[in-house]
Amino acid sequence: MRILGIDPGSLVTGYGVLEKNGADILHVDSGVIAPSPRKLFSARLHEIYTNLGILLKKFRPDEVAIEEVFFAQNVRSALKLGEARGVALLAIENQGLPMFEYSAREVKQAITGYGQADKQQVQKMIQRLLKLPEPSAVDASDALAIAFCHFQSRKMKSYDRAS
Amino acid sequence: MRILGIDPGSLVTGYGVLEKNGADILHVDSGVIAPSPRKLFSARLHEIYTNLGILLKKFRPDEVAIEEVFFAQNVRSALKLGEARGVALLAIENQGLPMFEYSAREVKQAITGYGQADKQQVQKMIQRLLKLPEPSAVDASDALAIAFCHFQSRKMKSYDRAS
Repeated sequence: MRILGIDPGSLVTGYGVLEKNGADILHVDSGVIAPSPRKLFSARLHEIYTNLGILLKKFRPDEVAIEEVFFAQNVRSALKLGEARGVALLAIENQGLPMFEYSAREVKQAITGYGQADKQQVQKMIQRLLKLPEPSAVDASDALAIAFCHFQSRKMKSYDRAS
Repeated sequence: MRILGIDPGSLVTGYGVLEKNGADILHVDSGVIAPSPRKLFSARLHEIYTNLGILLKKFRPDEVAIEEVFFAQNVRSALKLGEARGVALLAIENQGLPMFEYSAREVKQAITGYGQADKQQVQKMIQRLLKLPEPSAVDASDALAIAFCHFQSRKMKSYDRAS
């Protein structure tokens, strides 16, 4: 079972690919899509969409987990974030993959046990949980956390079914 | 010169195609893309994106005008609107078309002479300006108004250059 986690953003979109092997959750790949801010915004959307399409074809995940957003600084930033998130959802939809959404709070809770954890705490725990030699870039780490959260959530669901 | 106007929305995306022939601005086509609300949101985004792609190929506009958004009821609705707007921007970017953005206030000002005009006033003026036998659906009318506003704006720009 392979999961792609996505943390969409209007400036930087993080991604992380995890694979479950028996009881182990292994890091396959992670990184960021960060189009030049000097490009037109529509060209940046095109870059996010195209690169996610390439990643989906390269890593062929079974499922995709993406951050669900409830808050933004203001309407303007919510719109820009929505635009980036929209093209990410479209890239996933194109591949017909099952998609699951988790709030930042659920992800932080799943990774650190604390729903208000900051990005650095998540980064450290992700490094430890996945036995990475170095901490990932913050946006890549967030995407790995979303994918990890989805594995945890699947585990709970199957536990529920078994009990 | 042919213009496609787009009024993106998370539920209904309006479109309108206008063509300038001498001094006349003629209605070519208009309508709405309204995916079933029972579909998954990502499938609705896919429908907006695919249908806009078909319209762009069918009508081959020279330029596209789209509503610029500054306000939304709340962050949640701004995000959903952004998602729909993001896939619309992507469809335009795919065709490499020049794109122009106008605020609702600029559009209303251009059509009715009053920046606070309501949708019904815009609808009536668009019907009169384009000599339509019946008023268009509100979202189609808004899209026609955006395209019309762009023609007006181009006229002012060329006037500026000539003076």
